[in-house]
Amino acid sequence: MVAADNIQTKQPTQPGAKFNLKDYLKARQQICEAALDKSLPMQYPEKIYEAMRYSLLAGGKRLRPILCIATCEMIGGTIDMAMPTACALEMVHTMSLIHDDLPAMDNDDYRRGKLTNHKVYGEDIAILAGDGLLAYAFEFIVENTQNVAPDAILKVVSRIGRAVGAAGLVGGQVVDLESEGKSDTKIETLNFIHNHKTAALLEACVVCGGILAGANTEEVQRLSRYSQNIGLAFQIIDDILDITATQEQLGKTAGKDLKAQKVTYPSLWGIEESRKKADQLIKDACAELQPYGEKAQPLIALAHFITNRNH
Amino acid sequence: MVAADNIQTKQPTQPGAKFNLKDYLKARQQICEAALDKSLPMQYPEKIYEAMRYSLLAGGKRLRPILCIATCEMIGGTIDMAMPTACALEMVHTMSLIHDDLPAMDNDDYRRGKLTNHKVYGEDIAILAGDGLLAYAFEFIVENTQNVAPDAILKVVSRIGRAVGAAGLVGGQVVDLESEGKSDTKIETLNFIHNHKTAALLEACVVCGGILAGANTEEVQRLSRYSQNIGLAFQIIDDILDITATQEQLGKTAGKDLKAQKVTYPSLWGIEESRKKADQLIKDACAELQPYGEKAQPLIALAHFITNRNH
Repeated sequence: MVAADNIQTKQPTQPGAKFNLKDYLKARQQICEAALDKSLPMQYPEKIYEAMRYSLLAGGKRLRPILCIATCEMIGGTIDMAMPTACALEMVHTMSLIHDDLPAMDNDDYRRGKLTNHKVYGEDIAILAGDGLLAYAFEFIVENTQNVAPDAILKVVSRIGRAVGAAGLVGGQVVDLESEGKSDTKIETLNFIHNHKTAALLEACVVCGGILAGANTEEVQRLSRYSQNIGLAFQIIDDILDITATQEQLGKTAGKDLKAQKVTYPSLWGIEESRKKADQLIKDACAELQPYGEKAQPLIALAHFITNRNH
Repeated sequence: MVAADNIQTKQPTQPGAKFNLKDYLKARQQICEAALDKSLPMQYPEKIYEAMRYSLLAGGKRLRPILCIATCEMIGGTIDMAMPTACALEMVHTMSLIHDDLPAMDNDDYRRGKLTNHKVYGEDIAILAGDGLLAYAFEFIVENTQNVAPDAILKVVSRIGRAVGAAGLVGGQVVDLESEGKSDTKIETLNFIHNHKTAALLEACVVCGGILAGANTEEVQRLSRYSQNIGLAFQIIDDILDITATQEQLGKTAGKDLKAQKVTYPSLWGIEESRKKADQLIKDACAELQPYGEKAQPLIALAHFITNRNH
């Protein structure tokens, strides 16, 4: 496995310089953390804001906001144009984690090495904290996005709504729940689950970043293909890590899929073949970005990062 | 009590004709039902769409979409301009009911005379059905609103997000949960709960209807005051009905507040005084609509309907 900071891309930012993903991620994570912290100030009733902030600011890789901002810049936009949407995408993602962890769903006690929201605040508050984050995400985009045409903001709202709803994340989660305990889940079903549960929101991150910067239809399609490929690769790697990584590395319960008798990519293809497929998906993803030359460096490095991560 | 169809307004629609609220409501409910049915077609994975449709199409007064459409028309817009937002408001309202009824929240088995969502589909699906409806509401507005300026649609998205989130419905619900079992809840707290839990969404219905029709700032403020007043009156009447109505009339468990030892308006003021306050709020609400003359008839009749309903 290649460590994140050793990834070399063919076209360096400055002649002779290598793109340093580790430094890039660190810097971007910092600005995202600061923006997220500012996005949701404490107020009355404190309990719900505390619960929302607890999960929103619980760390994590901030991969979704970083993808959104990186795409916006690649297409010619600025960090500022994308930041409200980037924060909103992290709010939406956080909502899905809080609700997924509930006893009626995956019943998880730990997430990112911390107690899950309902373990700290109770189930009722955790449900409401998720609802609050989802609703606020849309308000936040509209109230804070500047220097972007209203039509583009509307497209972003629609894309995110679709990515989270029954046509996206929620739909994937439902099929995932239905397939639990079934050992005869087909590859088509597994693909549906992950295309909706994981890839749909990653696609929204990338595509919305592009739309905010004024991407045209062909560019949006290109960005869709890039993000669908990395989304599926992301999930394959997640399945592999559930088997190979420790709880300490994951910050959440390991070996969950095996315990739940879930069909996963490694259970269908084996670990080695799964890794090969993930690598091919990342290659296909990166090929879509060729027209952008060295401007695509962050997105290409991020794609490779996904297959090389160990948590 | 005045029956809904006997309400007389000072300025009839046609000289000599009385505005007939009963007929008006019946006709509006029908077009709302048809629009809601069409808004969410069945598709794979059927289970989640079935669950969403089960609660969205479970009847009810459709007061929120009707308020939205009536306001849009009063300000000079059309039914078509408001209908996507009207449907979205009912989706958002339905989400709040599904989540409110969950065992971790109010733990209700019946709603509108039917089993609650989680009693039919399970808690996991009920949580996801709520999430799906909330996310879809925003997508639906953007994808279906026509002949309205993009800026106005953005304002509507923001208003609804705010009305549902921690600054609105969710915030009210949290304070409501905190005050359960406390017999020393102050009137300020009770007002906060209902201004946020009930009035905020009713306000969004009215104000968004106005915004879609191009209401100016002064008109928006007028509409806000109208709807805040009817929102609080609505809740006072709800509290009274919880004591005086039967389960059959309510279509949901009666006497819940008493059982939960909740402080309510009638428990603070008594039933008679509570009804008087509700009547005064409705008078104040209607006074705001004076500039609109006979165009305000539906909204005035709707305000009176709220205090005169028995379920």
